[in-house]
Amino acid sequence: MTHTLILLRHGQSDWNEKNLFTGWVDVPLTAQGEKEAVNGGRLIKEAGLLPDVVHTSLLRRAISTANLALNEADRHWIPVKRDWRLNERHYGALQGLDKAETLEKYGEEQFMAWRRSFDTPPPNIEADSEFAQDNDPRYQGLGDEMPHAEALKQVIDRFLPYWESSIKPDLADGKTVLVAAHGNSLRALVKYLDDISDEDIAGLNIPTGQPLVYTLDEDFRPTVRGGEYLDAEAARKAAEAVANQGRK
Amino acid sequence: MTHTLILLRHGQSDWNEKNLFTGWVDVPLTAQGEKEAVNGGRLIKEAGLLPDVVHTSLLRRAISTANLALNEADRHWIPVKRDWRLNERHYGALQGLDKAETLEKYGEEQFMAWRRSFDTPPPNIEADSEFAQDNDPRYQGLGDEMPHAEALKQVIDRFLPYWESSIKPDLADGKTVLVAAHGNSLRALVKYLDDISDEDIAGLNIPTGQPLVYTLDEDFRPTVRGGEYLDAEAARKAAEAVANQGRK
Repeated sequence: MTHTLILLRHGQSDWNEKNLFTGWVDVPLTAQGEKEAVNGGRLIKEAGLLPDVVHTSLLRRAISTANLALNEADRHWIPVKRDWRLNERHYGALQGLDKAETLEKYGEEQFMAWRRSFDTPPPNIEADSEFAQDNDPRYQGLGDEMPHAEALKQVIDRFLPYWESSIKPDLADGKTVLVAAHGNSLRALVKYLDDISDEDIAGLNIPTGQPLVYTLDEDFRPTVRGGEYLDAEAARKAAEAVANQGRK
Repeated sequence: MTHTLILLRHGQSDWNEKNLFTGWVDVPLTAQGEKEAVNGGRLIKEAGLLPDVVHTSLLRRAISTANLALNEADRHWIPVKRDWRLNERHYGALQGLDKAETLEKYGEEQFMAWRRSFDTPPPNIEADSEFAQDNDPRYQGLGDEMPHAEALKQVIDRFLPYWESSIKPDLADGKTVLVAAHGNSLRALVKYLDDISDEDIAGLNIPTGQPLVYTLDEDFRPTVRGGEYLDAEAARKAAEAVANQGRK
């Protein structure tokens, strides 16, 4: 028996468009991002995929993407599960900064280290930052697990317990699972599924709004490494655009 | 200790606008309906209400209303529960018919009996109707409980078990509960909460997009009979409009 897992990165957000580091700041989708989400839903529907349950982060750009895609796919009525462990990487003190200005100010090496270092997070967000969220009601109860800056390694460490406790059991129940999340929480999952090295994951970019389907075997290993995009050509172009972020 | 329950009827749907009997047909909101939902969310936010969980039907007009209202209220991230027991009354063979034409063809008495009879449902939907849903994946597993036409009594009979099993326990846990549903599933609940007679419920109309807040005592009885609309004047006008449906 195989399992079907569909990954969907949210469409363009307000701060993607403005080229700002976003992380946990809860910005909305742009009109283009909404279109991307609807298009993702159309692709899911046209492929005959029938999600039985959706998992989202606690951020509105992923939640809205799931809502719009599922509505388009006529699966708006399925059960919904949300968890902070699917959130985007917390970008620490970089949240709210312009990517191009940051690149210019700190140089290519530091910029790429912050963007792609596997295990060294950027500086922590300051407690008095306008983007600090220690009092946000949705994160009460996290205690010491509340992040203040993360590299991909920290995202993996907080994401994988949710994979084990919530997503895998849904797949094991025979459900087709949609995960609507973010560039880095999805990279964390893909790294795990495809067993990608700490070095190689730096070069992997996941395009927005492009459903990526993994068929997993009975041991939850991919039958096709890297999964399969429903619209492979569009996904290739979109991934290139992500890789070039910061270089306006 | 009191409990806070917020009821929200979905905004204008495509078939409200076209003046057709809708029931379980899964039509979308109109642009006006989307605005009503956002306005409902704004009222919830301005009142300082913080829903901890939302319950919706399996129909997209209630689901979209909940999504839009919660997004506006910055509570898009709360847990979601959906159940067919919150669906609109099943309008049987009337689904898809024009309300004004039906009034003209069958006369005031039969029309009002179908709309407001407490316990006599309209004729069952035909198995070969374009609006039959016996094969709809969301209703598989209902078995003998799958309705084919309902009066308010049948809605109450299938709604109250969900009140007991799902909504009341959330309230008992101290949660502020939002129920985003339909004219008749909400009338079923209001009839129960306010202990309205089978005769008097016929005259009660719930306006679309207007949050209705019940504060319940420790026995889950309303502290204010009929609850309180967050925008009482707008709710009064909207309820009058509902009462005059079919009379274009």
